[in-house]
Amino acid sequence: MIAMTHQYIESNRDRFLNELFDWLRIPSVSADSRHKGDVRKAAEFVAQKLKEAGADNVQLMETKGHPIVYGEKMSDPSKPTVLVYGHYDVQPPDPLDLWNSPPFEPTVRDGKIYARGACDDKGQVYMHVKAFEIMMKQNKLACNVKFMIEGEEEVGSENLGTFVKENKSRLKADVILISDTSLISLDQPSITAGLRGLSYMEVEVTGPNRDLHSGVYGGAVANPVNVLSQMIASLHDQHGRVNIPGFYDKVAQLSAAERKALNEAPFNLSDYKKELGIEEVTGEDGYTTLERTGIRPTLDVNGIWGGYTGEGAKTVLPAKAHAKISMRLVPNQDPQEISNLFAKHFASIAPKTVSVKVIAHHGGEAAVTPTDSVAFRAASKAFEEVWGKKPIPTRDGGSIPIVALFKKELGLDTVLMGFGLDTDALHSPNEHYGIKNFLIGIETIVSFHQHFGKA
Amino acid sequence: MIAMTHQYIESNRDRFLNELFDWLRIPSVSADSRHKGDVRKAAEFVAQKLKEAGADNVQLMETKGHPIVYGEKMSDPSKPTVLVYGHYDVQPPDPLDLWNSPPFEPTVRDGKIYARGACDDKGQVYMHVKAFEIMMKQNKLACNVKFMIEGEEEVGSENLGTFVKENKSRLKADVILISDTSLISLDQPSITAGLRGLSYMEVEVTGPNRDLHSGVYGGAVANPVNVLSQMIASLHDQHGRVNIPGFYDKVAQLSAAERKALNEAPFNLSDYKKELGIEEVTGEDGYTTLERTGIRPTLDVNGIWGGYTGEGAKTVLPAKAHAKISMRLVPNQDPQEISNLFAKHFASIAPKTVSVKVIAHHGGEAAVTPTDSVAFRAASKAFEEVWGKKPIPTRDGGSIPIVALFKKELGLDTVLMGFGLDTDALHSPNEHYGIKNFLIGIETIVSFHQHFGKA
Repeated sequence: MIAMTHQYIESNRDRFLNELFDWLRIPSVSADSRHKGDVRKAAEFVAQKLKEAGADNVQLMETKGHPIVYGEKMSDPSKPTVLVYGHYDVQPPDPLDLWNSPPFEPTVRDGKIYARGACDDKGQVYMHVKAFEIMMKQNKLACNVKFMIEGEEEVGSENLGTFVKENKSRLKADVILISDTSLISLDQPSITAGLRGLSYMEVEVTGPNRDLHSGVYGGAVANPVNVLSQMIASLHDQHGRVNIPGFYDKVAQLSAAERKALNEAPFNLSDYKKELGIEEVTGEDGYTTLERTGIRPTLDVNGIWGGYTGEGAKTVLPAKAHAKISMRLVPNQDPQEISNLFAKHFASIAPKTVSVKVIAHHGGEAAVTPTDSVAFRAASKAFEEVWGKKPIPTRDGGSIPIVALFKKELGLDTVLMGFGLDTDALHSPNEHYGIKNFLIGIETIVSFHQHFGKA
Repeated sequence: MIAMTHQYIESNRDRFLNELFDWLRIPSVSADSRHKGDVRKAAEFVAQKLKEAGADNVQLMETKGHPIVYGEKMSDPSKPTVLVYGHYDVQPPDPLDLWNSPPFEPTVRDGKIYARGACDDKGQVYMHVKAFEIMMKQNKLACNVKFMIEGEEEVGSENLGTFVKENKSRLKADVILISDTSLISLDQPSITAGLRGLSYMEVEVTGPNRDLHSGVYGGAVANPVNVLSQMIASLHDQHGRVNIPGFYDKVAQLSAAERKALNEAPFNLSDYKKELGIEEVTGEDGYTTLERTGIRPTLDVNGIWGGYTGEGAKTVLPAKAHAKISMRLVPNQDPQEISNLFAKHFASIAPKTVSVKVIAHHGGEAAVTPTDSVAFRAASKAFEEVWGKKPIPTRDGGSIPIVALFKKELGLDTVLMGFGLDTDALHSPNEHYGIKNFLIGIETIVSFHQHFGKA
């Protein structure tokens, strides 16, 4: 089977890549309303490819936002059912001037596909479409398959909850399979067994009712940028902990054994710093880098702006300052509760010289997936078969909030079989995805279906 | 004389305004290299108007940057010479969406001219051009007059120093006359007798070598926006003092009597707060609002940016964060020294997790002008004659660095005879200038020349 699959992939390599490139050319930026038409075009593209591969009931299912692409192949009721989840929307490409090739013109350099969405998540979704095509063509469909590919993952999957609740019977399955995470490296396969949650806030600090001349008013009228800086600075204490009352109250603590296991993953701090071009790491006192990014909650400013940001000098005391601030959450922290704690705290620390407005963009719960399930073992065997090496379970820092949603609404566990690398520049300029990762991913997915179908 | 002047202004009111409007339509934004041609066009415009009014030797004198407009009327060597200084460049109009009418399409509402540069400084310069026209037409030129109108005031007058040094004999005069400041109100004339200096810095904080996914790296890799916020926050202590070693070392202290006199200027804190829409003022402990904006040095962030600032949410840990930070200085503080102190301090407080770059945009010394000079008394008499009220000497928060330059290079004192109001929204959206201020200013300037010529 594996040899046949490998042969098929080799023979169709260029076609697979060209199809993916066509999909990557569609700028499906869900955060930007100007791209609404493109987002729909990207949905139609993958729906068409599912049809061509042989899926039934392929359709764009409407939501209040962008549509969800559904398709299925129920070949045998006695076989287990795999529900593949992914997303066809992408992050905004800004800042554009830092891309070495245009974000929506896929370009291959050093065996890597450079494009927005190359890895997150079109490239990873497309592995499943092609794995499905192979199994259909070779008459080796070992499981029933359902596809649910959404267009709002990068803006918080706001309409997915409703969709899942309203389509419970349609989505009936035995496991959820998602490729939207990373491997340790191409030499060391891994399966993500934990993900952080997310609360994403936006704040606005208003001082005077108009921009002022900093010479005439400076020193007497509070400057919203200075005030916002002070407020942001106060959100961490001197031990690198998030300084919001109640923030850590529900944080799940790992046992000493769990922490030991986590820290046994291959990790070289000096390589890590070198690859990022930094002299020192930072973070919460008492935790390692793997723990800080895997099992501890964090707070980061994702964007800040206020006043004059153009060329040269302008002596303005601006009326407003803004920031986008997100918190990564760990198991047992509730995103809604954390958003509320943030909003309450942020308002409470604002001096009387300004007014503040806080809005919550979106959130998602942290998730831990079981490593002793039939599906996890099938994934592990697939890696062993294709890579010749046993994968290591890891904890990832990123958030896929729908893992918790699927557990709650559908009662299903998820297997996070991702093939990206942490260095793929997700959400950054020059996002890329290794062609090797793409091709070996297809093969590993086919193998997973075979092992899970036999289990 | 005053009646004749008044009559002339009334008869030519619409023409005066239309000429000014034509000048305001030229977007002479010196900070923006895309407007280089417009800046020159604005210089040519005022040169032409000086010629039409009867000035001799009118020319655009080239510098390394924007040209300086020169013109003169040396009618009688026995008369004193007034050197009028002003600037024809304007601040950038951003943020454009907050203007109620386009910044370069002058619009009259409620007796005020709305346009970028309406008050700062085209409107105020044009009063001198028209006052000169009146005196020429009515054969009442009481003094010799020289004009020096530059195009780089809003970017730090970088080439004016060289120009002044190289043209000392051409610029020989008895006093400098500048209209680029504000009155207390139309009911209470005032003459500015002190101005703050300026150091303007730009900082860049760099963390990792690329934008990162905040989920994957957040908590372990220092976020440049968080770090910059902490650094900015630390630039003030809990008493509202600037927290840079050596910053206050040379600050000139006023005597108790001087402070008492300063605080006798009409000022109503509750009106001040209401007009600005703020609940509380802020500032250095132990000083009044008039002192904080007039005689004490300050530090303000004029602009900040970093990370994702578009619509929606993007979970990026940005590679860089930037800010523009300026300090208003008081007599005896040297801008170059303060810039150096800032740069040294800012680098010293950067944690090892980031690297920082600091550049100095431009600076200027604070200045105090004598209130007992012949010229100051002539200005005072002009106000009394035209306004029926004795003007109050005030200390202004803004900076006109060239006042110190003129004193040093030409040995000349300056009279700051400004006709704007603090509420004119200089450097802000909806900058405006009262038509009444413009017209009465012309009359007061004509009167000044008569009194100074007789002195």
